[in-house]
Amino acid sequence: MAIIGLDVGGTKILGVLFDDNGEIVDQEKVPSKGEEGHKVFIDQVHFVVDSLIEKSSVEIHGIGVGVPGIVDTDGEIVFSPNLPFEGYRFKKEFQERYNVPVVIGNDVNLGTYGEYCELKLEHANVIGLFPGTGLGGGIIIDGKLYIGQGFAGEIGHITVEKDGVKCGCGNHGCLESYASKKGILSYARKQIRKGRKTLLKEDVKMGVVKSTRLKKVCDEKDKVALEAMEQFYDYLAMGCGIIMNIFNPDIILIGGGIIEVFNDVLLKKVTKRAKKYAMPGVYEKSEIRKSQLGDHAVAYGGYHLMKSKL
Amino acid sequence: MAIIGLDVGGTKILGVLFDDNGEIVDQEKVPSKGEEGHKVFIDQVHFVVDSLIEKSSVEIHGIGVGVPGIVDTDGEIVFSPNLPFEGYRFKKEFQERYNVPVVIGNDVNLGTYGEYCELKLEHANVIGLFPGTGLGGGIIIDGKLYIGQGFAGEIGHITVEKDGVKCGCGNHGCLESYASKKGILSYARKQIRKGRKTLLKEDVKMGVVKSTRLKKVCDEKDKVALEAMEQFYDYLAMGCGIIMNIFNPDIILIGGGIIEVFNDVLLKKVTKRAKKYAMPGVYEKSEIRKSQLGDHAVAYGGYHLMKSKL
Repeated sequence: MAIIGLDVGGTKILGVLFDDNGEIVDQEKVPSKGEEGHKVFIDQVHFVVDSLIEKSSVEIHGIGVGVPGIVDTDGEIVFSPNLPFEGYRFKKEFQERYNVPVVIGNDVNLGTYGEYCELKLEHANVIGLFPGTGLGGGIIIDGKLYIGQGFAGEIGHITVEKDGVKCGCGNHGCLESYASKKGILSYARKQIRKGRKTLLKEDVKMGVVKSTRLKKVCDEKDKVALEAMEQFYDYLAMGCGIIMNIFNPDIILIGGGIIEVFNDVLLKKVTKRAKKYAMPGVYEKSEIRKSQLGDHAVAYGGYHLMKSKL
Repeated sequence: MAIIGLDVGGTKILGVLFDDNGEIVDQEKVPSKGEEGHKVFIDQVHFVVDSLIEKSSVEIHGIGVGVPGIVDTDGEIVFSPNLPFEGYRFKKEFQERYNVPVVIGNDVNLGTYGEYCELKLEHANVIGLFPGTGLGGGIIIDGKLYIGQGFAGEIGHITVEKDGVKCGCGNHGCLESYASKKGILSYARKQIRKGRKTLLKEDVKMGVVKSTRLKKVCDEKDKVALEAMEQFYDYLAMGCGIIMNIFNPDIILIGGGIIEVFNDVLLKKVTKRAKKYAMPGVYEKSEIRKSQLGDHAVAYGGYHLMKSKL
């Protein structure tokens, strides 16, 4: 029962072919080229799937797709601001083109589900928090992906600062505005405006920073960057504390680009500080863990979700 | 299959006898007398159950109990600061005394579950928010009460003001410190310290205020009380927005003493303001509703939870 897990991201598209046993057989990765418009972008998506199928000696039984956006209960993308889907009915078109069942979900939801399934737990409650450019969330309740009416898990957009800084979603003071690279750059921007010097000046101007670059600047003991990271840790810990009080989960999984680079430092600081934001007795019950699948989490999630539907 | 639903509250103990069809057959209500110590308090609890059984012409098949505190996965009370349980193994003792199965849960969890079951929905996701003296929460996922490792639903203790006012739980800036009568009195206390006059002066001194009294003071156009209510509405709306972003639920149920008195005014203000705190597209999907069972919600929850286990 070969299945393709597809991670359609803002910068790259990763397709992974899984065999009957969930082992990776083959993979294909190309740039998304979203900036080149709808047609080029969709061609890139098709290229990844086409080439995996062409190279495969086994029959494909389904495709599980993660996208950075909101997917409705029918499995169609309703909001994905960073990619030129332009009303493309992904699920329908894909099912027709490849003649196999297709499931689509939010990428962080799928990433959390992929991580969860590979942990081989049973009936556990696990919440995923993936800080990167933004902050995505995923919810596993009793071993199943929870999506509410399709939009659940928007933990990055819970208000943590009443009347705080404006967020891309239109509201103010969202957790994502502090516990993400966007938040880190926003902190640095404020300091630059105050006349302080920082190696992040060019990154602030560009509005983006790679996690590896951020780590390098921190290693060079750039004060503004180090302060920005401390603020990041603190708000991420606050998010973990809020999740503990609401879900009292077995595990909080931290994934995404930043933890891949900052690793144990991040994990230790956030775990320690979460205590301040969780109820006594609740904190001790939840473990904060690093995700294990790295770049492949979303593809694994696509595989497992598709498999669960077959 | 007659079942007793028991609401062991901080001020009163309410026992309700339900028949096979979930109809109320009889009820008994006495003051908790928690302030008179463990023995008197437990005697009051026993009195309620004893008298319901004595008066009943049918056999009792189980007892479902709600308590204001934290109950572990074994069903024993581990934390209930406002009542003198003093290590009393409630479930064990009750099962031995009455020779029937007993289930125990947090009162707001059970209240939410009772409300949910009486709505006769199927597989819905419903979150309960019960502002009273404090702020309790309850989570129904896919029609089932969700308790995580036993402590889930502590929505009143999520941090909404980083380094905000100290809460009884030991942390700072908990939602409960703003969206509850405790929060309302705390606001009034601050204004009194600033030299402002308010009819709530005596209530602030006592540290408690009945919801009916609060309403009366507002009706008399007491400025401080009206401002305190506005703050209350705003934070409760923030709580609703946070819940919408995380759970994208079908319904948020508002219960507890305050809404019983402020009714539609509360519902309208909170519903309107929640928009500011929920993601666009998410807000429209969730309905904020008033609970329907009033004082009987917890007892109904006890009945339904016990029934689901038989």
